[in-house]
Amino acid sequence: MKLIDLSHPLEHGQLNFPFDPKLSVLVHNTVSSIGYNITQLSMSTHQGTHLDAPFHFYDDGKTLDQMQLEQFYGACSIIDLAPGAFVQAKQELTIEMFEPHEDLFVAGARIIYRTGWDRMFGKPEFFSDFPTLTLEAAQWIADRQIGLLGMDTPTPSTDWKECHHILLKKGVEIVIVEGLTNLEKLPPEFVFCGFPLNIKGRDGSPIRAVAIVD
Amino acid sequence: MKLIDLSHPLEHGQLNFPFDPKLSVLVHNTVSSIGYNITQLSMSTHQGTHLDAPFHFYDDGKTLDQMQLEQFYGACSIIDLAPGAFVQAKQELTIEMFEPHEDLFVAGARIIYRTGWDRMFGKPEFFSDFPTLTLEAAQWIADRQIGLLGMDTPTPSTDWKECHHILLKKGVEIVIVEGLTNLEKLPPEFVFCGFPLNIKGRDGSPIRAVAIVD
Repeated sequence: MKLIDLSHPLEHGQLNFPFDPKLSVLVHNTVSSIGYNITQLSMSTHQGTHLDAPFHFYDDGKTLDQMQLEQFYGACSIIDLAPGAFVQAKQELTIEMFEPHEDLFVAGARIIYRTGWDRMFGKPEFFSDFPTLTLEAAQWIADRQIGLLGMDTPTPSTDWKECHHILLKKGVEIVIVEGLTNLEKLPPEFVFCGFPLNIKGRDGSPIRAVAIVD
Repeated sequence: MKLIDLSHPLEHGQLNFPFDPKLSVLVHNTVSSIGYNITQLSMSTHQGTHLDAPFHFYDDGKTLDQMQLEQFYGACSIIDLAPGAFVQAKQELTIEMFEPHEDLFVAGARIIYRTGWDRMFGKPEFFSDFPTLTLEAAQWIADRQIGLLGMDTPTPSTDWKECHHILLKKGVEIVIVEGLTNLEKLPPEFVFCGFPLNIKGRDGSPIRAVAIVD
């Protein structure tokens, strides 16, 4: 068994989307003062590698505590959209790029796609110039009723509102895992593990996403 | 395969140890204002169900990002110290209570013990009156070089400083998982999964601990 870390580390002041609360890693106390190091962590529920619950875009959508653990753990496939290379900045990800892999898109499937954009993590361009899923491709994916969609971009689409509405709406409710990394290290099939913190009543959670490879 | 949640949910204002930063779950923005719900989470790295890195008590100890993923995932055993009942408040957990299970304590083993104290979670007594590992028992466990020690109390011992020093010191470096729940639901053997957030350079992390049962 081999474990592959699919998560970016969390660091004080790390960039995220302009209107999101910033990540603060604050020394709360120290070994020399009271005997132990302890930290106050302040962050967005959508910081770094994280996942979205339907409540993120729908007030009547499921919150983290209303989701099943099985949605976050199990067999998963990777679709490499640019093997050995990178998808260009701002390039549209179209139905035609997913169609050759249509057999993977069965009900409940967990699917992650790789663009190579994780190499830009830490730069402002990571959040402005990422490859972007077309709304037609998002609808094509939603129609296939998969269970989880992961990616190495900070969000699936520049049409963020419409795209999230398509993927998270009642009856579709795909778990969206954003900001993954190391996807080029994955074999075609593996076990995905990315349990969210159980933040009652809320919209998303940073996760330590890990691939378990036999 | 069955998944069992071993974690308490996180809620605004949740109790923790007196000197630790408190958990705030803040509405940062909403669907009606900007189109999506997003939350600012402020918390201690030792809130609720969480794990300790050696740096928690040793300035030269390993931080989260210096630990191996394999330490947080794999075969695990449960020792029930009061099957069908509860260990009394403030009761000492002695070597004699662990000795009947000595065959489980092999190098690298992951072991969780149950006292039933998780039933007090949310009450101030959870943090003041918990059953407490004697320092002799902590040393007995450390001598056996296990890899992970989990429990349903908020910390292993009222002698917290000495106990953490024994368990986290260089060459011992046992991963301590505190504040577990639902341990009475576990079969004797299972796979423990509790990856921390990769907070660079720091001392611990809240986790979503899950048991994977075949």
